[in-house]
Amino acid sequence: MSSLDQYQKVSEEQHKKVQVNPYGPNPSDYLSNVRSFQLIESTLREGEQFANAFFSTEKKIEIAKALDDFGVDYIELTSPVASEQSRIDCEAICKLGLKAKILTHIRCHMDDAKVAVETGVDGVDVVIGTSQFLRQYSHGKDMSYITKSAVEVIEFVKSKGIEIRFSSEDSFRSDIVDLLNIYKTVDKIGVNRVGIADTVGCANPRQVYELVKTLKSVVSCDIECHFHNDTGCAIANAYTALEAGAKLIDVSVLGIGERNGITPLGGLMARMIAADREYVMSKYKLHKLRDLENLVAEAVQVNIPFNNPITGFCAFTHKAGIHAKAILANPSTYEILNPSDFGLSRYIHFANRLTGWNAIKSRVEQLNLNLSDDQVKEVTTKIKKLGDVRPLTIDDVDSIIKDFHADISTPLIQANDGPGPVDEEEASLDNVKRPKLN
Amino acid sequence: MSSLDQYQKVSEEQHKKVQVNPYGPNPSDYLSNVRSFQLIESTLREGEQFANAFFSTEKKIEIAKALDDFGVDYIELTSPVASEQSRIDCEAICKLGLKAKILTHIRCHMDDAKVAVETGVDGVDVVIGTSQFLRQYSHGKDMSYITKSAVEVIEFVKSKGIEIRFSSEDSFRSDIVDLLNIYKTVDKIGVNRVGIADTVGCANPRQVYELVKTLKSVVSCDIECHFHNDTGCAIANAYTALEAGAKLIDVSVLGIGERNGITPLGGLMARMIAADREYVMSKYKLHKLRDLENLVAEAVQVNIPFNNPITGFCAFTHKAGIHAKAILANPSTYEILNPSDFGLSRYIHFANRLTGWNAIKSRVEQLNLNLSDDQVKEVTTKIKKLGDVRPLTIDDVDSIIKDFHADISTPLIQANDGPGPVDEEEASLDNVKRPKLN
Repeated sequence: MSSLDQYQKVSEEQHKKVQVNPYGPNPSDYLSNVRSFQLIESTLREGEQFANAFFSTEKKIEIAKALDDFGVDYIELTSPVASEQSRIDCEAICKLGLKAKILTHIRCHMDDAKVAVETGVDGVDVVIGTSQFLRQYSHGKDMSYITKSAVEVIEFVKSKGIEIRFSSEDSFRSDIVDLLNIYKTVDKIGVNRVGIADTVGCANPRQVYELVKTLKSVVSCDIECHFHNDTGCAIANAYTALEAGAKLIDVSVLGIGERNGITPLGGLMARMIAADREYVMSKYKLHKLRDLENLVAEAVQVNIPFNNPITGFCAFTHKAGIHAKAILANPSTYEILNPSDFGLSRYIHFANRLTGWNAIKSRVEQLNLNLSDDQVKEVTTKIKKLGDVRPLTIDDVDSIIKDFHADISTPLIQANDGPGPVDEEEASLDNVKRPKLN
Repeated sequence: MSSLDQYQKVSEEQHKKVQVNPYGPNPSDYLSNVRSFQLIESTLREGEQFANAFFSTEKKIEIAKALDDFGVDYIELTSPVASEQSRIDCEAICKLGLKAKILTHIRCHMDDAKVAVETGVDGVDVVIGTSQFLRQYSHGKDMSYITKSAVEVIEFVKSKGIEIRFSSEDSFRSDIVDLLNIYKTVDKIGVNRVGIADTVGCANPRQVYELVKTLKSVVSCDIECHFHNDTGCAIANAYTALEAGAKLIDVSVLGIGERNGITPLGGLMARMIAADREYVMSKYKLHKLRDLENLVAEAVQVNIPFNNPITGFCAFTHKAGIHAKAILANPSTYEILNPSDFGLSRYIHFANRLTGWNAIKSRVEQLNLNLSDDQVKEVTTKIKKLGDVRPLTIDDVDSIIKDFHADISTPLIQANDGPGPVDEEEASLDNVKRPKLN
């Protein structure tokens, strides 16, 4: 029985076992929305604040349609008062008849609100700075002024029969009493959502958990969270916010936004699918993630980061010998994500000095050659020796294996019931299938 | 008084205020090592498992020296049994006389340990898979075998008078009772550190906090943590581990490692400097971060991700009008990190349709022109109009401003006591200085 056949058998056995998912949501977190979160997709708002972003009307429409097709719950657009074209584009996207609800994001001013409600949006996201920093250096208003403006704008938007969210800005550097007061006030007058925003990217997960949990005890409306990624915690903060009872997370494709951006759509999908694969798979077309990222990356002229979750070129590449060995036996050993969920495939990198004899044995079988385990170990030593001298290609490894095989006195050519002819897919060992984790 | 002069005044006033750092470590966390963490730098071990990595001896030495100069506490190297050259390189790096302690990372086998202790390393990091997955599909051993091997290897390494760490692999999918039993055993026989490894990148921050806190109550030795980044939580998990009492974090430059890698050195620096700037600045040469990242990026042929914390090209770029306005008044409004701490500078992106009149006013002053606020607002409208049609350059904006200025009946040329001639630095508005946050 070949390694691949053995693998299939193991895989079936795995299927039979019902496994508890130990890295899923904690069942004792009764507040948790990890299994029922929604996405507010902000590539066309926050993403427009990315240094390189200039979206033409056509490109905005193309992106909006792709996001809608992916399955995001809301699409947030730049304020219609930002520029005349921004207003026209907002109206155009509202007329597309997408499944996703369309939002626009405005300052907490009646001037902005009056323009926003005329665009045809399904809802308005209002924001105002509440931190000492922003109150002093941005709008210069005190909390009673902020509250008065908020109430006026909220009641106006509500009177138009569309959704309204009120968010503080820089929430994690705002006074907690100020925050809870204003959230309580706007909740009472009937906002659909309140928002917490880590505008500067300073928050850490335990802070997020505490703030969201506290806010959850104060308001009855939904809680939305917005996390910048300056200190690399935007995905983890989003996840922890959901655990604490937040319902909606702001994301953008590749995380593009002010500075180095916000919670990336793809990265959050990776985090959430590890927690509740079924919910994520039922809502979002994950196999379209790569195309969506490519569309936006091209529009803003950036490369997909080499280490991007899911779609980075090496996200499913296994290299060290002990990793390769275990992945060949069962991919779940070293993979929390299943590449096929995203229309991708894994790659076992066996052409290097860290390789092991199990990976080489699998390659020998793919080449339809017959070597004993001791012989495979011997040829592995040769491969590692060349790998010490220079980077190796698959051809290098194949040549060493074939030369070694030819040197053996009585080479046995396997019959055709082996793993079949070597095609490109097999050459990368990426045809290894995996049992399901959930 | 120009905006820049006003800025300086505000900046000085800011300095006078002693501010509590609300996004720093929580003083009630008496377990926390956020203010006393250490780094185990693994670019030359975990990083060698990155798909693209092939480090020549010369490159390894260059990287080791650069890491040592940066100030990392430990440098971890590939196992000397991985290949003959790996062993030779390990010995060569041990002989460099670096300040950082040199470690090598081996399987929990006496065969490996015997080779490792002869290389001249200051310590040995031992690892073995403890999860059901790895016990079944990798080494196939039970916990009593694992414990027996661990004790034998640890006592052998200790007898050589060098440091020893014992780590489980895939800790977050291991049985908690198994884990605590083996950690308790190895702690009793005197390991220097025990390690927790999120080998598959499945852990989330609250899980990390619970496991580390529990382990802290079981062992008296230091706790080291290793986080993979498959679901984008490696930085946040590292921070939360420190809060729970872990002392050492494994990092690599740009996070390179198996699949999409581990906690990145630079990203963790961003997280930690936001928590305790003084400690981080006293220990690590942050202004060398960019060179270090460029060195490794070039060696493994990747680009610095556009959204990399700190060194991504837009990490300190501010674009939206309200952001630009507040940053001009006080950079702390929208920055948790000070670019000058890393030898970098900020950039205010004013040539786009999201720009605001405060940013344009600042530009007008830099151009040594004199316009009233109403006139600046008028020219800002013109700039936004062109920004609706196509991407703008700084030259576009300057032409619009100059044309507008020339159209005014009696243009007043400012005297030379303005902000001085426009040089390249000023053209990007990146000469805005900021008050300290701590």
